[in-house]
Amino acid sequence: MPLTDRPELGVWLVGAAGEIAATAMVGASALTRGLVSTTGLTTAEAAFAPLRLRPIHALRFGGVDIGATSLRDVAMSLSRGSRTVHRDVLDAVLPDIAGYESDVLRDAALTWDTAAPAADLPHLQTVVSRIREAIAAFQARHGLERVVVVNLMSAAPEPPPSPLRAHAAGVESLIEQDRKDLMPPSACYAWAAVAEGCPYINFTPNAGTDWGGLAELAQRRRVPFYGDDGKTGETLLKTALAHMFALRNLRVLSWEGVNLLGNNDGRALEDPRNREMKLRHKRGVLDNILGYSPHAGVTINYVPSLGDWKTAWDLIHFEGFMDVPMTMQFTWQGCDSILAAPLVLDLARLADFAARQGEHGPMPHLAAFFKHPLHVDEMDLQRQFGMLMQYIETHRRQG
Amino acid sequence: MPLTDRPELGVWLVGAAGEIAATAMVGASALTRGLVSTTGLTTAEAAFAPLRLRPIHALRFGGVDIGATSLRDVAMSLSRGSRTVHRDVLDAVLPDIAGYESDVLRDAALTWDTAAPAADLPHLQTVVSRIREAIAAFQARHGLERVVVVNLMSAAPEPPPSPLRAHAAGVESLIEQDRKDLMPPSACYAWAAVAEGCPYINFTPNAGTDWGGLAELAQRRRVPFYGDDGKTGETLLKTALAHMFALRNLRVLSWEGVNLLGNNDGRALEDPRNREMKLRHKRGVLDNILGYSPHAGVTINYVPSLGDWKTAWDLIHFEGFMDVPMTMQFTWQGCDSILAAPLVLDLARLADFAARQGEHGPMPHLAAFFKHPLHVDEMDLQRQFGMLMQYIETHRRQG
Amino acid sequence: MPLTDRPELGVWLVGAAGEIAATAMVGASALTRGLVSTTGLTTAEAAFAPLRLRPIHALRFGGVDIGATSLRDVAMSLSRGSRTVHRDVLDAVLPDIAGYESDVLRDAALTWDTAAPAADLPHLQTVVSRIREAIAAFQARHGLERVVVVNLMSAAPEPPPSPLRAHAAGVESLIEQDRKDLMPPSACYAWAAVAEGCPYINFTPNAGTDWGGLAELAQRRRVPFYGDDGKTGETLLKTALAHMFALRNLRVLSWEGVNLLGNNDGRALEDPRNREMKLRHKRGVLDNILGYSPHAGVTINYVPSLGDWKTAWDLIHFEGFMDVPMTMQFTWQGCDSILAAPLVLDLARLADFAARQGEHGPMPHLAAFFKHPLHVDEMDLQRQFGMLMQYIETHRRQG
Amino acid sequence: MPLTDRPELGVWLVGAAGEIAATAMVGASALTRGLVSTTGLTTAEAAFAPLRLRPIHALRFGGVDIGATSLRDVAMSLSRGSRTVHRDVLDAVLPDIAGYESDVLRDAALTWDTAAPAADLPHLQTVVSRIREAIAAFQARHGLERVVVVNLMSAAPEPPPSPLRAHAAGVESLIEQDRKDLMPPSACYAWAAVAEGCPYINFTPNAGTDWGGLAELAQRRRVPFYGDDGKTGETLLKTALAHMFALRNLRVLSWEGVNLLGNNDGRALEDPRNREMKLRHKRGVLDNILGYSPHAGVTINYVPSLGDWKTAWDLIHFEGFMDVPMTMQFTWQGCDSILAAPLVLDLARLADFAARQGEHGPMPHLAAFFKHPLHVDEMDLQRQFGMLMQYIETHRRQG
Repeated sequence: MPLTDRPELGVWLVGAAGEIAATAMVGASALTRGLVSTTGLTTAEAAFAPLRLRPIHALRFGGVDIGATSLRDVAMSLSRGSRTVHRDVLDAVLPDIAGYESDVLRDAALTWDTAAPAADLPHLQTVVSRIREAIAAFQARHGLERVVVVNLMSAAPEPPPSPLRAHAAGVESLIEQDRKDLMPPSACYAWAAVAEGCPYINFTPNAGTDWGGLAELAQRRRVPFYGDDGKTGETLLKTALAHMFALRNLRVLSWEGVNLLGNNDGRALEDPRNREMKLRHKRGVLDNILGYSPHAGVTINYVPSLGDWKTAWDLIHFEGFMDVPMTMQFTWQGCDSILAAPLVLDLARLADFAARQGEHGPMPHLAAFFKHPLHVDEMDLQRQFGMLMQYIETHRRQG
Repeated sequence: MPLTDRPELGVWLVGAAGEIAATAMVGASALTRGLVSTTGLTTAEAAFAPLRLRPIHALRFGGVDIGATSLRDVAMSLSRGSRTVHRDVLDAVLPDIAGYESDVLRDAALTWDTAAPAADLPHLQTVVSRIREAIAAFQARHGLERVVVVNLMSAAPEPPPSPLRAHAAGVESLIEQDRKDLMPPSACYAWAAVAEGCPYINFTPNAGTDWGGLAELAQRRRVPFYGDDGKTGETLLKTALAHMFALRNLRVLSWEGVNLLGNNDGRALEDPRNREMKLRHKRGVLDNILGYSPHAGVTINYVPSLGDWKTAWDLIHFEGFMDVPMTMQFTWQGCDSILAAPLVLDLARLADFAARQGEHGPMPHLAAFFKHPLHVDEMDLQRQFGMLMQYIETHRRQG
Repeated sequence: MPLTDRPELGVWLVGAAGEIAATAMVGASALTRGLVSTTGLTTAEAAFAPLRLRPIHALRFGGVDIGATSLRDVAMSLSRGSRTVHRDVLDAVLPDIAGYESDVLRDAALTWDTAAPAADLPHLQTVVSRIREAIAAFQARHGLERVVVVNLMSAAPEPPPSPLRAHAAGVESLIEQDRKDLMPPSACYAWAAVAEGCPYINFTPNAGTDWGGLAELAQRRRVPFYGDDGKTGETLLKTALAHMFALRNLRVLSWEGVNLLGNNDGRALEDPRNREMKLRHKRGVLDNILGYSPHAGVTINYVPSLGDWKTAWDLIHFEGFMDVPMTMQFTWQGCDSILAAPLVLDLARLADFAARQGEHGPMPHLAAFFKHPLHVDEMDLQRQFGMLMQYIETHRRQG
Repeated sequence: MPLTDRPELGVWLVGAAGEIAATAMVGASALTRGLVSTTGLTTAEAAFAPLRLRPIHALRFGGVDIGATSLRDVAMSLSRGSRTVHRDVLDAVLPDIAGYESDVLRDAALTWDTAAPAADLPHLQTVVSRIREAIAAFQARHGLERVVVVNLMSAAPEPPPSPLRAHAAGVESLIEQDRKDLMPPSACYAWAAVAEGCPYINFTPNAGTDWGGLAELAQRRRVPFYGDDGKTGETLLKTALAHMFALRNLRVLSWEGVNLLGNNDGRALEDPRNREMKLRHKRGVLDNILGYSPHAGVTINYVPSLGDWKTAWDLIHFEGFMDVPMTMQFTWQGCDSILAAPLVLDLARLADFAARQGEHGPMPHLAAFFKHPLHVDEMDLQRQFGMLMQYIETHRRQG
C-alpha cells in the first residue's frame, strides 16, 4: 500500500543515510501511518495552522550519502542501538524506508578535506553538475512540485578565507578553477541546490550559507535559504535560560558546558579542526543575551558508548546580591536524532511555504531553529520564536 | 556619620529580624557605602532609569518581629552562618543596622495559629491599632515621605474560608468580633498597612492580599498593593524554562521538584499545614505555561545544615519525536536571603513609584516577582517581565 | 525445543507476574540461549567458580501472583514500557516464559491488609496449606531436586508487634487462631516455604524473616533462609560510598536521598504505611558505617512516567578541614527490574548451594545483597562482600 | 604568645606561599588554638592513636616559594576569596602565620621549564646546595628534631626519559653536568631533601620520586619517602566507588570525568604539557580496580571564577543485566586547599613516625593518600586504607 497517492514535496537530504535523516524518514512514515504522536514537531502546534503547511504525508525523501550502509540498516540501528524507536513501529515503516533507497545517490567522491583534497576527485564543475542532476532526476522521477534540500552532513573544518566568495561570479570562478581548497563540499551542495531552484537549509555548522555569492545567486534564482547549525540540545537550553539571569541582574561569571556524545557527529567532532565552527556558534549566544562576556568554555568529548544519547552538563557560576557567588547545574540527556529529525521536517515545510509565497533570500524568521541564525542578532529563544509568530501573523492577515 | 542627610522612604518590614530583612538592610547599607555592586537588584538595570526610582540611600528601615534577637546578631549570622557577607563589609555597616533597632517593634503577641488562637492575646482591634501606630510613629519619627510595608513573615497555615472577606465591611466585622480563627496575622498586617495609607507588598504565601475586602479598602484609601510569594529559586527557574518545552512541542510527562533548605523558612515549612499554600503556588505555574497538566510533584524538606543555602533539584521527564522519553535535571544552589533581599528593595522602590503616580489597587506589572501573581494569568517569566517593560515604557512616554 | 533436558532447581517466586520476576525469567532464558552476556549476575564472576553453583539453564520458574496479567504480557511490557529488553531477544524467549504460566498459581485471596483483613478470606491454616501444596505440586510436576522460594511481593505495612512471634509455637497459634491482623501474607509465605523444607529468600522489606519463630522452624527443618530487602540502587550506593567520608574524617552533616519511581513498587510505596519499613532500612545504614547519626532524610515519590526507571538523587552535605562545608551530589538512573532480577538468580543459586551443604538458619554471608541484612551489623558493601569471599574461601578449602 | 614552647617537627613546604600551604599553616594554628575541630584530619581518628604521632602543635612551618606574595596575604585571601576560613579564626592565627614568613626562602631561580631552561639560572649543583642549606638553616634556627619536606609546587611538564635516573650516580652526573632539560625542579627538591636526611613527600604529579636513583639515595641515607599526587577529589571518589561496579558485575562502558577549577593549580593545568602526568594518574585507577579498560576520558578546564572550589562532574555509563545501559552521575564541589591541607599534615606526621622507627625507602602503607601510589598496585581506596590499618596494627603490637 503506498503511503500517499501523490507525494508533492521532495526532501533531498545531504547525508541521507545518517541517523538524523533515517529518523526523519522513519518518523514521517510513522506519523503518516498514525503510529506516533506529533510530539516534537514544532509545526504541528496549533499556532502554525494558519500557514496550512504541506502535510507530513506529502513529503517524499531522497538525497545523497558518501557511505554504503542501506537506509534499512540505518533505520534498524535506531531500534537496536539507541533503543529509541520501538521495534513494531519500525517493522511497520521499513518498507517505506526501503522504498527511498533508490532515490539516494551513493557517491564517496562528493566529499573532501579542504586542507588536502585528493588528486583523483572529479572537477568541481562535475561535482556541482552531479548534485544538480541527482536533484532534478529525483524531482522528475516522482513528479514533485518542489524539492527542498537539507544539509545534514558531518562537521568539517572551516576552509581558509577568500574574498571571491562575496559575489556569485567569484564563487563561479572558484568552481571553474576547481579550487577544492577554498570550496568545501557543503558549499557545493548549497550552490547546486540554489542553482537548481531549490530552497536550501543548512542544518550543520559547515560553510557556504553565509557567503555573499550564495545570497546573490538566491536573489537571482528567487530561492529562499537559511542556516546554520540546528539548535537541538545544550545551546537550545542556553538560549532559553540565559535571559533569566539577565532579567534578575544576576551576573554570570562562568558558564561551562560539557557535551558528551557517541554518534557519527561525535566521531567527526573528535577532530579539533571539525569542531571549531560548532564551538564558535555555541559560545556566541551568551554574549548576545547577557550583554557581556562571561567565561564560557565549551567542551565536546566523544564517548562511543553513549551512541546517539547526547549528554550535556552545564555549570553556571553566577553572582547575586552583595556579590555572593551561587551555582546552577543542569544535565540534559537527549537523543540527538530524535531532537534533530522533527526540526528537519519543520524546516522543510517552512522553506516550502516560503517558496510558495515567492519569498527568497535568507529566512530570519527561522532563527529559533539555529545555533547561528544568519543575519539575526537576537539569540534569545523566546524572542526568536516571537519573530516566527510574527511571520505567521503577517501571513495570516494576508492569507 | 549618617548614611544620608534626609531619608525619604520608609521600608517597614514584617519579620524585620529575619534573615531576608537583615540582608536587605545590610545590602542597602553596603550599596550606599559603595562596598558592593548592584548585582541582583533588578531595578538597578538600565531599563528602569526612566522611572527615576528612589535611590537606595534614601531608604530607611523599620518593622516588627515576634523574636528578640537583635538586628546586629542576625546580621552577624549572615557572615558566620551562611558565609555570604564578607566580614569587613559587615563591620562597615553594622552601625547602620544597629541604628534601625529602635525602629523595630518586638511583639510576640502579633502572631497566632488560626487553628487554635491563644486565649490571652489582645483583641484584633488592638492588634490592628498597634500595627498602625507603630507604622505611623516610624514615619513621624523620621519625617518620612512615605512608608512601604513589606511582609516577610514565615509561612503559616491557610485559614478556613469565609465569605466575609469579600468586602471591606466583612473584614471589619471579623476584626470587631475578634475572629482570630478567620483573620490570620498576615491579613492584619495587610489591613493595617493599607488602612494607614501605606503601599503593601506580600512577599510570603500567607493569606490576605487576595481578599476582596482588601482590594476595596485599597481602592478607598487609594493605595497600591501586590503579592503573593516572592519568586526566588526553583519556581523562578520553572517559569523561565518551561516555555522551551512548549515552543519545541516537547511533551513534559513529569516535572518533579525537590527543595532542601535549612533556614527559619525551612523550619516553618516542615509543618505540612504551613507549606500547603506554597506548594499550590509552586505547582500552578506549569499548567499555565504548558497548557496541560503534567505530573508535577513538589517536595520541601528541612535540612538544617544547609542553613540559608537552598538546594533545589528538579527532574524533567519529557517526550520528544516518536514519543521517545528523555530527561533534563537541574540543581540550583542559591542563598535564599541573597536572592530574596534585593527583590524586597526592588518592590519597595516600585511600590513607592506607583504610589507617587497616584496608582492604586493591585500592581499586575509586578507579576515577574511573584510565584502567585495576583490577578495575572501569565506565568512565563519573560512575558511577565515584558509587562513590566511595557509599564516602564508607558511611564517614560508620559514622563 | 526444551531449554534443558532436565531442570533441577525450582525457583518459586511470590509475585511471579511482577516485573522483577518476569525479568529474572526472561534473563535466565536469554542467558541459556546465549543472547545476552552474564553482566549484572554477581555469581557469574570468577570468584564464585569454586562453589560450582547450579547453572542458570538448570533453573525452572514457578510461583504465585494475586494479579491476572499473563507472564507473556508482563514480559512484553519490558520491551515496550521500559525499553530495556530488545524485541528480538524477547521474541526468542517468549515461548519459554509462556511455558512457566501453568506453574503460576493465581490467587487474589493470598493477600490482605493486616490493619483490616477482609472477612471472606480463607482461614490462615488454609492459606498456609494452599501455599505448601502449590510448592509441592510444582516440585513434583517437574521432578525438581529442590525448590527455593523468593519473595518479591510489594511493600506492605508493618503489622503491630506481638510476642507470639518469638517462638514457633507462638506463630503456629497465630495461624490456628486466624490472626490475619498479626500475621501478614509475607510471613505466611516464609512459614509455608520453610515448613515445606524450601530455602527462603525475602527480597522485600516485608515482615516475617526476623521472627524468632521462623528461625526455630528453620532450625528444626534444617532449612537456610535470609533477607531483608534487596539492595539495588540508592542504598547500594550509600553503602559503597559512605566509608570514604569516614576514612578521610570528613563529617557528614546531612545525607538527603530522593527516590523517584513509577513501577508497581512505586505505586505501593506511595502509601506512607507501606514505605515505613523500607525507609527504616534505608536510613539505618549510614549510622552504622559512619559511627554517628547525620541528618538523613529519605524521600520516595511515585512518578508514573518513569516506569521501571528509578531515579535517585542524593545530596551529601559534609564538613572538611577547618569545618568548611562542601557538597557532593549523585544521580542514579537505573532500571529497577534489571538491577534486581540478577540478584534473585544469584540468591537462588547461593541458597541452593547452602542447602546442598546442609547449612540452615540465617545466611549472613549474603549480607551484601540486602538493605537490612539479618543478624549482621556490618553495613559497608565492600566488607559485606568480604564476608561472602570468606565463605567461598572456606568452602573452596573444604571442597 | 608563642604557639608552643618547643616546636619539634619542621614541615618544609615547596610552594610555601601557595593556597594549600597557607591552609595547612592556618589550620594547624587554628587547631592548636582550639578554634576548629579535627575534621578532615585522617590521623586525628581514633585508629591512629596507637602510633602516638607528633601533636599538631609541635609542627613548625618553613619552606620555599618562587612568588613574592606574603604568607599573610595568601592567608587573608582564604577568607576573602574562597570564603572558607572565617575571618575571626583568621584574625586569631595571622600572627602565627606571619611568624613563619622569615622561614620561607623566596627564590624565583628555583624553577625552570625542562623544555627550555633559561640561560641565566644557577648551575644545578648550586640549586641543590641552596635547597639543602635552606632546610638545614631552618632546622638549626629552631632546634628541630627533624624536618619533613613536602612538595606542593604546581604541575609541570614531564621531562624526556633518561636512563641515568635509574641510579644515584646517574642522577649525580645529571646534576654535575647541569642537565636542567633532564632534571626538573621537583627532582632537585626530592634529591636535596633526601640528601639532607629529610623524609620527603611528593604531593604533586611532578617527576623525581619514582627514579631508581632517588630510592638508592634514600636507602643509603636511610630516609623514607613517598608519592605521587595527593588524592583529594574526583580520583578519591573514583577509587571509593569503582569497586561497587566490580562487586555487582556491572560493566562500566565509559567513565567520563570533568574537572573545573580556578586556582593556581588550574592555571598551571591549562597548559596541556603540565596536565599530562596528572591525567595519566587519574586514568590509571579504573583499569586496576575494574580489571578491564572502560572508555575513561578526563577533562580539566580552568574556570577562574571558581577559585579554589574545584567542581568535578563524572558520568558513569554502565551495563547491567541483559546488557541494559544505565547511568550514574556525580558532582563534587570541594574546596581544593581544604581537602588537601589536612593530608599534608597527616603525611608529615606519618613520615615523621616512619623516620622515628628507622624505616626508609618508599612507604606503600601511605597509598590511600595518593593518585599514583609508588610501588603499589592496589588502587581501591578501602583496600589501600586497610594497608594503613595493617601498618598501625603491626606497630601497635611491636609498640
